[in-house]
This record gives sequence, C-alpha cells and structure tokens, in this order.
Amino acid sequence: MKLDLGRLRKKGVYALIAEVCAEPFLVQNVEGRILYGDSDSDYTTKYPLLFQDEQFGWISGGKRAYAISRLVMLFAASECEKKELGQETLAKYRELIFLYDITEKLAASLRPQEVAILVISEVNKLIKADKVSLMLINEENGLLEVIARLGEEAKTKLTLKLGEGIAGNIALSGKAEIINDTRRDPRFLEGRHKVSSMMCAPLRIKDRVIGVINLSSAEPANYTAEDLKLLSVLTLQAAAAIENARLYDNLKEAFLTTVSTLAETIDKRDPYTGGHTKRVMEYSLAIGNFLGLSNPERERLKLAAILHDIGKIGVRDNILLKEGKLDETEYNEMKRHTVYGEEVLKYIKFFNDIIPGVKSHHERYDGRGYPEGLSGEQTDIIARIIAVADTFDAMTSDRPYRKALSKEAAFAEIKKNSGSQYDPQVVEAFLKAVAMW
Amino acid sequence: MKLDLGRLRKKGVYALIAEVCAEPFLVQNVEGRILYGDSDSDYTTKYPLLFQDEQFGWISGGKRAYAISRLVMLFAASECEKKELGQETLAKYRELIFLYDITEKLAASLRPQEVAILVISEVNKLIKADKVSLMLINEENGLLEVIARLGEEAKTKLTLKLGEGIAGNIALSGKAEIINDTRRDPRFLEGRHKVSSMMCAPLRIKDRVIGVINLSSAEPANYTAEDLKLLSVLTLQAAAAIENARLYDNLKEAFLTTVSTLAETIDKRDPYTGGHTKRVMEYSLAIGNFLGLSNPERERLKLAAILHDIGKIGVRDNILLKEGKLDETEYNEMKRHTVYGEEVLKYIKFFNDIIPGVKSHHERYDGRGYPEGLSGEQTDIIARIIAVADTFDAMTSDRPYRKALSKEAAFAEIKKNSGSQYDPQVVEAFLKAVAMW
Repeated sequence: MKLDLGRLRKKGVYALIAEVCAEPFLVQNVEGRILYGDSDSDYTTKYPLLFQDEQFGWISGGKRAYAISRLVMLFAASECEKKELGQETLAKYRELIFLYDITEKLAASLRPQEVAILVISEVNKLIKADKVSLMLINEENGLLEVIARLGEEAKTKLTLKLGEGIAGNIALSGKAEIINDTRRDPRFLEGRHKVSSMMCAPLRIKDRVIGVINLSSAEPANYTAEDLKLLSVLTLQAAAAIENARLYDNLKEAFLTTVSTLAETIDKRDPYTGGHTKRVMEYSLAIGNFLGLSNPERERLKLAAILHDIGKIGVRDNILLKEGKLDETEYNEMKRHTVYGEEVLKYIKFFNDIIPGVKSHHERYDGRGYPEGLSGEQTDIIARIIAVADTFDAMTSDRPYRKALSKEAAFAEIKKNSGSQYDPQVVEAFLKAVAMW
Repeated sequence: MKLDLGRLRKKGVYALIAEVCAEPFLVQNVEGRILYGDSDSDYTTKYPLLFQDEQFGWISGGKRAYAISRLVMLFAASECEKKELGQETLAKYRELIFLYDITEKLAASLRPQEVAILVISEVNKLIKADKVSLMLINEENGLLEVIARLGEEAKTKLTLKLGEGIAGNIALSGKAEIINDTRRDPRFLEGRHKVSSMMCAPLRIKDRVIGVINLSSAEPANYTAEDLKLLSVLTLQAAAAIENARLYDNLKEAFLTTVSTLAETIDKRDPYTGGHTKRVMEYSLAIGNFLGLSNPERERLKLAAILHDIGKIGVRDNILLKEGKLDETEYNEMKRHTVYGEEVLKYIKFFNDIIPGVKSHHERYDGRGYPEGLSGEQTDIIARIIAVADTFDAMTSDRPYRKALSKEAAFAEIKKNSGSQYDPQVVEAFLKAVAMW
C-alpha cells in the first residue's frame, strides 16, 4: 500500500504543522513534485519520508526538519492503515453478502443438476472465465463426471479417474488451486478447447470430497487468491446443497423403483418380468405432457400409473391367473381390483391423493365403466389418462389367448372409442404424443 | 467511541510536536490529568480537545496552542477511526468464521431434530440465555410446535397457533425481534417459567416461514442488535438445513410406510390388516439394539424385517391360503417363498444388501433349516435375528388352526431351541429386550 501525501495536504496536516512550527519546510513526493511549502526558500537539511522500507517523499527544512519528517510519517502511516482496514472490512462485507445470497438461493433446492447450474451461474457472475464445469464423483464407479457446465460447445461427457488431470488431482488432494499457466503444469490434459489458465476447487462435505468445480480461460488470465477465496466460499455451500439434493434424489429413485417393482410383482403374481407398469407410466406421462399438467399433477399421475393395478393383490389366483374366458361372476370379482386398490392405498397417507387415479382407471367417458359408473369429468383426470395408456399397452402386448395388435390398429381402436370409452381430450393428447415416437 | 489521548502519547505524537514547536505546551485529559508537558510553566492560552461534539481534553500553551490542539485532534480522530474500523473488520471476521463453521456442521445432517439440537447448542454458546427453543410449523395442522429445546425443566409440549404469543406473531410477520421487557409486550403469554427478556427470529426459506427460534432469560437481559444479528445468521443456515432434513424425512417415512404396507398386503393377500410386519420389525430392532448393531446394520435389519415374507407373492393361493395342514409337496412349495423373495428383490438395487436377511430367515443355527441349510454364522446376522422375531410373533398370534401362546410359553419355547434352531447370542439379546417390555 502506498502512502498518500496528497491526502495529508487535503486534511490540512502540513498547514497545521507549519502553524505550530517556527521555521519553513518543504514536502515533496519521491519524484520531486512539491506538495507543500515554498521552493524558493533556502533549506539546509533534507530527510526522506519512509513507510515499510520504501521511500515516498522528502521533507526539506532547517534544524526541525527531522522532527517534521517523523511527524508526517506517523500521520501518513495512521491514514494508510485506516485505508487498509477499510478495504478489508469492505471485502468481508462483500464475502458475507455473497454468502447470504448463495445460502438463500440454494435453500431447499432438491435436484443436484439444479444446484450445480445455479452455482455455475453465480461463479460466472463473479469471476471471469470462458468455461465453468461442475464434476461429481459417481458413487458407483468412483469416476469424476461433469454434471453441469457452461461455455462448452459440444455436449461431450467428460469423465476423469481420480488422480487424472488437474481436476482428478484436486479431488484427491482436497485443496483448491490456481493454475495460471497450464502449459507449465504436468498434470494438465490437453483437450479439444484451448485452456491457458484455470482454477479448480474441491466440493467437500466435512473431510470427504464429493466433486470439484473447474473454471478456465482460453486466454492467459491472472487468477488471484481473492478469486480462489470467492470460489471456495461458493463450494462450501454448493457441496452441502448438492449432497443433500443427491441423497434426496437417491432415496426418491429407490422409492419409485421399489414401488414399481413391487407393484408389477403383485400385478403378475410372479417375480418382476419388467415392462407393463413402466410402459403404462411412460405412456401416461407422455399424455400428461401434451395436456400441460403441472408438476404436482405429473407426480400424482406417475405414482397412480405405477400402482394402478395394485388391487389385483385381492383377486384370487383362480380368477387372476385363469387362462380361459372369465364367466360373469368371475368377471365381476376381477373388476373389484379397482376397489381393492383403494383399500390397499388408503392405509398409506402418502398415496391418498392418487386413490382416484387407481380406483377409477376403468371408468368410461360415457359413464358405462366401473366400479362407480362415473362419467366425463366426474372421473379424475389422471384416471382418464391411465385408462388410455393401460388399454394401449394391453392391446399391443401378447396375451396367452391372443397376439398383440399392431400399434396402428391400436391407435385406430382408441380413436374409434374417443368420446364413448375415452375422454376425447386425452385421446387427442395421446395421438400427439405417439406421433413423436 | 472515546478518543484515547494516552495512545497518542505512547506513539510519541506529543514529543514530536514539541520537537517541531518552539514553545512549551501541556496536554490534559478532561478530568485535568496531565498527559504531556510541564505543569509549572506559565501558559497564556487554553483550548479544548473535541471529537464528535464531545470534549476529551485540553491543550494549554502560548500563541501556537490553538494550532497544536487542532493537530492533536486530527491525529486522535484518525486513530479513533482506525480503531472503529478494526473492530468492524473483526466483527465481520467473526461472523464469517461462525457462518463457515455452522455451514460445515450442518452439511448433510439428515434429521430435523439433529439439526435443531445443533443449532440450539450453537446459539447457547454465543448468546446468554436460560432457555432456547426451536419451533416448526406442522404442515398438517398449521401449528407451531417445539421440536427441540434447552433449559426446560419439564417436557411439556408447547404448541402455538400462528399469531398467538410472541413466537406466533414472529412466525406471521417473518421479522426477528428483541423484547427486552416482556411485561411491556401485550403479545407475551405468561408461562410456567419466569421470562423477563427474549429474542425471537423466524426460520425462513425464501419468503416462507417454516418456524421460529426463541431465546429467553429469566432475569432482565439487554439483548443487542448484534445478538439479533448472530441469531439471524444462524437461522438462515438452520432453516435451509431443517427444511432439507424435513423433506428427506418425509420421503423416507413415506417410503417405509409404503413398502411395509405393500409387503403386508402381499403377505396376507388382503388389504393391510396391520400388525405382523410392524411387530416383526420392532422385535428385530429391539434385538439388534442389544446386539449393538451399527446404524447401517440397523437400517438393513429394518428393511429386511419389513420385507421378509415378500416372496409369498410367488406362492399360489391353494397353498398360501389353505386352512388345513399342508402335505409334503405343498410344504416344499411354501418353503420356496424364501427364494421367491430373493427373486423379487434382486431387481431392486436399493434392496440388494438385504437379500440375505430375506432369503435366509428360515435357516437354523444347526444347519437343518431352508432353503440352503446354512449353519451358525454362515447365515447373515440379520436373518438370524428375524428368525427369532418372526417365530415369536407367529407363536403369540392367533391362527385359524390354533390359539396364540402366552408370551411366557413363547419365551420358554425359544429358550429351549437356543443353539439348535436359534443363534444363542440372538436369543440372549431377545430375552434382554423382552425383559424391558
């Protein structure tokens, strides 16, 4: 930090010293420019003004000039320290504001991807970089994988082993680094893009590294310790938010897989054979997209589609597994799987709002369905969607007693029954969705 | 902030001015104590030393005394500002360190209760209080409920409506408050404990209040804006961590309820009747506690106990639901539910590590069980635990063909088979556990 002799003049320090002092004196900066005093006087002594071993000016005068120089140095040092402290306080304020802002933005974000994108965009606002990427360690294979990036031209999936390249090394060491000249770093791996400088910081949860964040610049950049500090502030918050999101995601994934596998097992009374439940769910969601369902409605639809036949658990083997045609009594019992579905799900609070989707997926738009004979929009929209998705999958799958219909024949059959068996809006959305396959 | 004339003396300011100046002068503080100069001299003038409209001393001297006083005031003000900035920087440093520390501690804590207890203990370290409590808004009934507290004598469950009491008002307004005298606040509700002063801050996620944190002191306290600031720093982090933990908890709860309800439905081929699965899980966990299982092992045990009979989905009705005794062929088929269990679960990655618990819960310690005839510790510990829990619940429940045994008779039966059918260590832990019921 430089001493500011001009600032002391503005504060009137030299003039006050002159008032106190009996003799004239001259203040000059190190280049000789006069800041105070009369250059025409004859001065017999001359003393340097010093601060932290560096000279920043001169005091010329008579026998009191030495004392004057010490007084000026004392004053200048005090002002200088004040300025330094002011800058430090400001930097801490900025860091705090940044930290609060990030904490608030990341609060309760529930998707790792979402958190990563937010973090990258914040980094990009604060630190100059051409490319930013966030990599996480895949828990299954131990590889570092890019989960979000900014400024890449192609969507190449970059994967590194731990210890490989700069990011792979940072993931091992757990210490953030600035590499201002990548050519001089043997760990640097040449890629398709030019990278002259980079910064890399680990994402850590306590002592465990879960990933890294990389910043790079094509042209040489001079990243500073201050930049690295900001990046580290961010990674602290980001790591916690991403880890939370990832744990939540894993649990949700496990939940859905479990429920759909169990549901299909129940449906078939055989270990998982794969397919029907998953396909009905996919068809249902495709229809839901074209109907513009909200996210909560899509969630409800997804779960109801997975569990639509859960009530078959209550139907006895001799009916459920019968290979020939069911007689009327048997058919009436078979139809009861819709109400058995309600009986199973009513004990699970989490599923209470999908009961209509499960119970009513055999209702018809014209009111001639079961179990309640609801018509039109009396039937929950998710049940009207599942009705189409379920029938379509049944028609296009092989059964013991008949071969699968072609998709085209199934489309025609569904179109024919639009407005009688099916909600015309749902059929329309279904046809739009299948047109994209 | 007070000006510090003693500090200027230590820095040699007065001595330097004296060297520069041709005339003697005297520096006194406002009480008249001499800080610099000779009191015996004759001084003709006397000027006050002022800072921010307050007098803090005197300069006595001759015709230059006025200039000296201005020089001293300039110097003193510069030093004073420096000190203020230093304190501000320090405060910001503390806030940052505190924030980083809290972020790290809260990272990936997955239970709301755990987060709340951590937050309360941090508050207690930093701010003087007799009682600290953390309340969350129950999403179902909209009431504020205490989920963790410190310093309460009785475990009374305090619940407030929104808008009720101080906490209920803060939850509505979303603004933190200091109430240094509760007697003068009409919102204050008298409780069983004396409360003279309190601070209350909302826990917020973006614009949504999810709870409040309360601090109180029995004796009058003078909580400051700085205390409130610290509390607010903490609530920002705490709210995010608690909300994440709560979402995770809700999902996990839904998962477990769903899986156990579906599992029991499958077991009985009837909608949920409640009981067997839940009891086997509870008995198993009680045994696990006495065996000192680790948390991950407890988790594995819990899920395996819930799903131990999932394979019954593959056993046909004529065998599963038969009321009389099974013949040998039928019994052999019934036994296959253990391997069917493996077949169902192997499709669910999340459950892969509980397969041994499900598949082997009918193995015997002497190797005469099924399906593989494993003996001793060849059988997974969780299967050896479930074996005891499952038999005990079967023996003590009514069955169509026999009445339930008394608990005592069941204990005796299990003890008798310790070392042959059951692992003696497990039986020992079981008997310790039941002794506590």
